[in-house]
Amino acid sequence: MAIVLAGHQYGKAENRVVRFQRDTPRHEIVDLNVTSTLRGDFADAYLTGDQTKVLPTDTQKNTIYAYAKEKGIVSVETYALDLARHFVDDTEPVTGARIDLDQYLWTRATVNGVEHDHTWTRSGSEVRTAAITVSGKGSEQEAHVVAGLKEFTVLKSTGSAFKDFLVDDYTTLEPTEDRVMATSLVATWRYDQTCLADGFDFDAAYDAVKSAFVAQFATVHSLALQQTLWHMGKAAIEAVPAVAEVRLAAPNKHHFLYDIGRFGIENAGEVFHADDRPYGLIQAIVARDDTPAVPLAWER
Amino acid sequence: MAIVLAGHQYGKAENRVVRFQRDTPRHEIVDLNVTSTLRGDFADAYLTGDQTKVLPTDTQKNTIYAYAKEKGIVSVETYALDLARHFVDDTEPVTGARIDLDQYLWTRATVNGVEHDHTWTRSGSEVRTAAITVSGKGSEQEAHVVAGLKEFTVLKSTGSAFKDFLVDDYTTLEPTEDRVMATSLVATWRYDQTCLADGFDFDAAYDAVKSAFVAQFATVHSLALQQTLWHMGKAAIEAVPAVAEVRLAAPNKHHFLYDIGRFGIENAGEVFHADDRPYGLIQAIVARDDTPAVPLAWER
Amino acid sequence: MAIVLAGHQYGKAENRVVRFQRDTPRHEIVDLNVTSTLRGDFADAYLTGDQTKVLPTDTQKNTIYAYAKEKGIVSVETYALDLARHFVDDTEPVTGARIDLDQYLWTRATVNGVEHDHTWTRSGSEVRTAAITVSGKGSEQEAHVVAGLKEFTVLKSTGSAFKDFLVDDYTTLEPTEDRVMATSLVATWRYDQTCLADGFDFDAAYDAVKSAFVAQFATVHSLALQQTLWHMGKAAIEAVPAVAEVRLAAPNKHHFLYDIGRFGIENAGEVFHADDRPYGLIQAIVARDDTPAVPLAWER
Amino acid sequence: MAIVLAGHQYGKAENRVVRFQRDTPRHEIVDLNVTSTLRGDFADAYLTGDQTKVLPTDTQKNTIYAYAKEKGIVSVETYALDLARHFVDDTEPVTGARIDLDQYLWTRATVNGVEHDHTWTRSGSEVRTAAITVSGKGSEQEAHVVAGLKEFTVLKSTGSAFKDFLVDDYTTLEPTEDRVMATSLVATWRYDQTCLADGFDFDAAYDAVKSAFVAQFATVHSLALQQTLWHMGKAAIEAVPAVAEVRLAAPNKHHFLYDIGRFGIENAGEVFHADDRPYGLIQAIVARDDTPAVPLAWER
Repeated sequence: MAIVLAGHQYGKAENRVVRFQRDTPRHEIVDLNVTSTLRGDFADAYLTGDQTKVLPTDTQKNTIYAYAKEKGIVSVETYALDLARHFVDDTEPVTGARIDLDQYLWTRATVNGVEHDHTWTRSGSEVRTAAITVSGKGSEQEAHVVAGLKEFTVLKSTGSAFKDFLVDDYTTLEPTEDRVMATSLVATWRYDQTCLADGFDFDAAYDAVKSAFVAQFATVHSLALQQTLWHMGKAAIEAVPAVAEVRLAAPNKHHFLYDIGRFGIENAGEVFHADDRPYGLIQAIVARDDTPAVPLAWER
Repeated sequence: MAIVLAGHQYGKAENRVVRFQRDTPRHEIVDLNVTSTLRGDFADAYLTGDQTKVLPTDTQKNTIYAYAKEKGIVSVETYALDLARHFVDDTEPVTGARIDLDQYLWTRATVNGVEHDHTWTRSGSEVRTAAITVSGKGSEQEAHVVAGLKEFTVLKSTGSAFKDFLVDDYTTLEPTEDRVMATSLVATWRYDQTCLADGFDFDAAYDAVKSAFVAQFATVHSLALQQTLWHMGKAAIEAVPAVAEVRLAAPNKHHFLYDIGRFGIENAGEVFHADDRPYGLIQAIVARDDTPAVPLAWER
Repeated sequence: MAIVLAGHQYGKAENRVVRFQRDTPRHEIVDLNVTSTLRGDFADAYLTGDQTKVLPTDTQKNTIYAYAKEKGIVSVETYALDLARHFVDDTEPVTGARIDLDQYLWTRATVNGVEHDHTWTRSGSEVRTAAITVSGKGSEQEAHVVAGLKEFTVLKSTGSAFKDFLVDDYTTLEPTEDRVMATSLVATWRYDQTCLADGFDFDAAYDAVKSAFVAQFATVHSLALQQTLWHMGKAAIEAVPAVAEVRLAAPNKHHFLYDIGRFGIENAGEVFHADDRPYGLIQAIVARDDTPAVPLAWER
Repeated sequence: MAIVLAGHQYGKAENRVVRFQRDTPRHEIVDLNVTSTLRGDFADAYLTGDQTKVLPTDTQKNTIYAYAKEKGIVSVETYALDLARHFVDDTEPVTGARIDLDQYLWTRATVNGVEHDHTWTRSGSEVRTAAITVSGKGSEQEAHVVAGLKEFTVLKSTGSAFKDFLVDDYTTLEPTEDRVMATSLVATWRYDQTCLADGFDFDAAYDAVKSAFVAQFATVHSLALQQTLWHMGKAAIEAVPAVAEVRLAAPNKHHFLYDIGRFGIENAGEVFHADDRPYGLIQAIVARDDTPAVPLAWER
């Protein structure tokens, strides 16, 4: 029996890059948290401490900031693709790179009814995410783009039930015809290779997927959060042809009807306690059946 | 020398009340985190363990939820006033009560361009706060209302300088004519007694103060965050006559120009690192000079 | 009516200073989060943007790091006193300074049963705090030292009751003779002026106060968290003569007996749900009656 | 092209179970955060909203609390194995179950030098984790145990270098012979099937792995965090024969030497700034070459 190095990767996590466009008086802001991960021929760094093939994480940081200007940020996906390709193409020992990023969104401030040129307030409605994987050198190279959002908290005050479920000796839950349904959605979706063509509009695709999510969450009369997730995933694929696969993880943020009947006060679905923990956690993968799965695209 | 109980208070913290209006198909949501604090004749609970005069924190919780329906929530301030007065008026040993609350804001979801009746997304732009103090029984009773906001993150990409400051042996900072200015504002403002009149519109006052803050932050050419705070406080008082005093605490969320000149790339105020810690912390109290200070209103 | 600047202060928050002693092979670590706050003649910075009297927060940062070596850290309190006195004594417009700090504690790593010279693991048992206030110039100067701890989580599985409390229309709580009591204690205590004498041992005082807290929490058969706090405060003063006043804030971290009787399983105080929110919050001030109150020492 | 449900699972996350042993006056505490995940025949819940085969997450919660007494907690791993097997064996549509848990550690309080029978303080040195996967019915069933720890923060003030690394156009880092190395380790290790035998001592194995980690971190003169991780993983396997594979993720918590030379003060590795972000993130998998990989054991 021998002990072996069975896997490894390394990078620089959470680079807080803020990029402004100041070419005109009306500035633009892109606010990012970028993480790089490199894969390749680094075993010696582990086994013998030899750093000859290790590009320092400090260098990765410098590159992440430099590329915000050198390549620019047409969309967060193209910026991350540029970074990932650079690390693989221009660094001999690197055979694969992954760029994960969070984008914090800002809303232009309004002063006397007019949008201000260079002031924003942070919008907290969601964090946009992207994860780009580039693997292989030269003509062997493949690239995969996963977009996403997280901390997207949605709630409906009616239009959701949960009943007719399986019952065992430990089941005490009462079925309900009408409840509050709320979640803080984490969604990621993989684009197929058509997204790599020039001019693919990642921002429009993001908006279309998000709108599809909201519309289904709102309008599906939900028999379970599971059912809502299925419809959300399906609608996203229908809305954007380039979406090959959608992964959804949804905590069921429980709102418990508070028992104020004890005090002679009726509670017709009006007063709830928003509980912290525990919470249901529902997950689903919805995919087109005409594209192969790409495990590499999801590997962190 | 004797050891004495020099002060005490107790309550129930962080009651997560969610209240819906469902009287029409178009529902409304109020999402709160409510903390009660009672002051009064409770020394025996500390000194001898005698609980006879102690209203359990569990009872305070029940009341907080019950009042969300029983009294309703016309505004968060009136709801909190109802609660504080109840604890003082209806509980013999209680001589003072403070209600602190956070309100999490929601935006109605849009489906096919139309606002949805019963679905919302959480807005992250700020948390609205209120702190109500009621003190004394019967005709001696006084009530004070402090409104506020927190986690209100604003940023401007130009229109801010910092120069001509005091220099000592430990000073290495370079003056700057043009920098990024960003803060996550915590503001609280005390209304004078006119706010206790029937029909005072707390929501309109809140909106007017917030608009004043944004307008000043955006339009004042800032020579220091201090100066911006002064103008924000002043504008809030000018915008809402009932505001007697504004307290502002603003972390200076530093954005450092990233040195990409080392790589031959010009950085004309375009690429920044958003740093976490340390940060400047600037505080100011701006007040009308025609109203007495009310320390009690701020005592936590 | 005029609008006036009624108060102001500013400083540099959360400087993460780590200081090692490396004079011998057995190194020592002090790991701090330091915040400075300056008070004085800074109104012009607010009113007109004039920074002539403003010592930059960046300079305060430099000083905080420099003093970790220049003055050293005999105890966190003496280090903070040195800093506060420097800002007041050596900066003309500064008339008062406050230094707040958190100290993260580390435990020397053990390798083969022997303590290691230069490796530690972070101890999570509590965060030690200190808050030093220096006010006034020259012979008018006064200094106050408040020590403390926070995130000190203690729990007892028996020896705590809650019963015979006040009951009103909203009371549904059942009295209990035996419950779990747990809290994440925030305690601060003010030393009297004897602590300013050379050779006062702040570390020994800290250890004695903490031991007193633990002993009382463990051994007092508690009729309420209030009673436990009183005994903790009293014991701290008895243990350390220099302690003039103790302030305690204790969230009652509720542990609810889980109802497994529904499944035919007895629960004799054995299985609990540790709830997050809401929680009771109990506060007390315990003081010697032979020393005047010092509001300035507590002003943040 | 059709849109299909390509994957799904669901469960109850973050059940905060606290279990006491009270059979003797000297009580014991086990403090857990337990998450269940069920896999199986649940597609109808997604596709049509049919809940007939869905065991409510509320039932899973009840079971998690009930088993803390019904089965007891000999070790966290055996408790989780009992739970996972129950869900698979006793619920017809369930074909696989995963139990993830965090254990918060407590230290017995010391009063007058003696350990107290029923009072503890929370130890913050690390969080112990376990992840149990049970898959398949009857004789086809397999079970896998992954143990771990997280939030385990270790630091060494010397004995670490970083030099001779790859240099490209964006490299500005200076090599160093002596630096501070610190990490907040996340480690997980998979036991082989011998751990399923009666009497396997999971607690002893945990302690041995943790000791091996600490010893290597302290004593390896590190040429890179990569090298330290390799030695930590290798030592864990050598220390506990049942360990088949170790996975390590280590943020390089950067401590930057603070430039106080500008003020004429020497800094011989004594004063550092502990930075928050960005940070290097180094990962490694170390394994025995005589056991097959088990991807299922790691699938979340």
